[in-house]
Amino acid sequence: MIIIGERINGMFTDIGNAIKDRNPAAVQEWAKKQEVAGARYLDINTGPASKNQAEDMKWLVEVAQEASDLPLALDSTNYDAIEAGLALCKRPAMINSVPAEMPKMERVFEMAAKYNAAVIGLAMNEQGIPKDAESRVALAMELVAMADAYGLHMEDLYIDPLVLPCNVGQDHGPEVFETLRQIKLLADPAPRTVVGLSNISQGTKNRELINRVFAVMAMACGLDAAIADACDDELVEAVATARIVLNMDIYCDSYVDVFRKQG
Amino acid sequence: MIIIGERINGMFTDIGNAIKDRNPAAVQEWAKKQEVAGARYLDINTGPASKNQAEDMKWLVEVAQEASDLPLALDSTNYDAIEAGLALCKRPAMINSVPAEMPKMERVFEMAAKYNAAVIGLAMNEQGIPKDAESRVALAMELVAMADAYGLHMEDLYIDPLVLPCNVGQDHGPEVFETLRQIKLLADPAPRTVVGLSNISQGTKNRELINRVFAVMAMACGLDAAIADACDDELVEAVATARIVLNMDIYCDSYVDVFRKQG
Repeated sequence: MIIIGERINGMFTDIGNAIKDRNPAAVQEWAKKQEVAGARYLDINTGPASKNQAEDMKWLVEVAQEASDLPLALDSTNYDAIEAGLALCKRPAMINSVPAEMPKMERVFEMAAKYNAAVIGLAMNEQGIPKDAESRVALAMELVAMADAYGLHMEDLYIDPLVLPCNVGQDHGPEVFETLRQIKLLADPAPRTVVGLSNISQGTKNRELINRVFAVMAMACGLDAAIADACDDELVEAVATARIVLNMDIYCDSYVDVFRKQG
Repeated sequence: MIIIGERINGMFTDIGNAIKDRNPAAVQEWAKKQEVAGARYLDINTGPASKNQAEDMKWLVEVAQEASDLPLALDSTNYDAIEAGLALCKRPAMINSVPAEMPKMERVFEMAAKYNAAVIGLAMNEQGIPKDAESRVALAMELVAMADAYGLHMEDLYIDPLVLPCNVGQDHGPEVFETLRQIKLLADPAPRTVVGLSNISQGTKNRELINRVFAVMAMACGLDAAIADACDDELVEAVATARIVLNMDIYCDSYVDVFRKQG
């Protein structure tokens, strides 16, 4: 599992203020911190208070790229803002995200093809998030078919089965695991999988414990990536360990440090 | 996943000395400590130095039962010692363990039927531990067939896919996960599954980290039980959390304490 660092998001006060004041310090500090901690992508989200999402996205992209060489995951439901950001990305970026809905898929997969970007596709549509694995997988198949039609490689399609907080949608947990397993059977090579990790623990106690336990369990079911707190040391240690157990990295006594440095 | 507390084992110096001196203090202390920490069974093993395994097993069984009401898992390759212990067990016990070999299976399943005991069956035979999941599952099927022939309920058959240390048998990790998944498809109701948890981290650094990450990943693949250190608080917290995520226990803010008390 790779970590898409979640911290450059206008929802956090320091980043929200940085955007408002066009002060790059906090953005660049988090870009560097997340990279050192082991993130492989930086999520970039202007946040709910943004009045001009395209301009704010462009500024964040430029400022983040001055501080870090990591590729970016542009996170917005405003596709004009995403496209404005994509045009400035120096490395192939990720579009976060698109539901299994026309014409949103058409717009997003066309942009992905134009800018050589990866795409996060959500297993939901106009009717919301399905309750069972079967319906989620059906929506995942729609995303696979559309991605394929636009020439996107399956390695560049990250499907998010959609995680609900375990204190309100507890019955979704096993369905998410089953969805992850079945997504890996939809195509060969298989599409990738991603979750928004902190969703599992919204409003709970022991948030970090729940996050890291869920993360490694999901890895056992085929999870490839997570938008998560790269600076949560215990999460990074658990993920590095899961990669050893899954035989994805070669064991050595310093495997946690090796994992961080690969970031 | 339930924890079978591993600590009453003559391999540990304090228990080895307790057996030699017929001094019950250490045995009873660990019986109580493991019960309070959340163990559901107590493993009982006379250890490698035992000169008279049957007599030592009988003594351990009697002494442990004076201190705790938990059922016992009698752990030996000496089936006379197991039978001597079973005859003294006040609650239905577990036999740990039998490989997929005749005539060992005949002896063990016959004892299980006579004493109403559960059985841990190992996915190995005279040729050793198979490398791939498919061969492990074939041996699991032999255990299922024999258990069925002796009238054992599938809920009382715990199949151990056999875990190797991740620093020497790293390629076995994914095979063990696949074996766990497939065992659940062998019968309906399915047999249960168990591992000797500390095997995954023999000779590694970060032993407890590796143990608890492996445990919850295996739970996502269908692991029901582990012979493990019930007094490892972080392991117990991770297991309790995995049970929440798998919707096996109802979420409440104090779910870790609730899990311990159910022990």
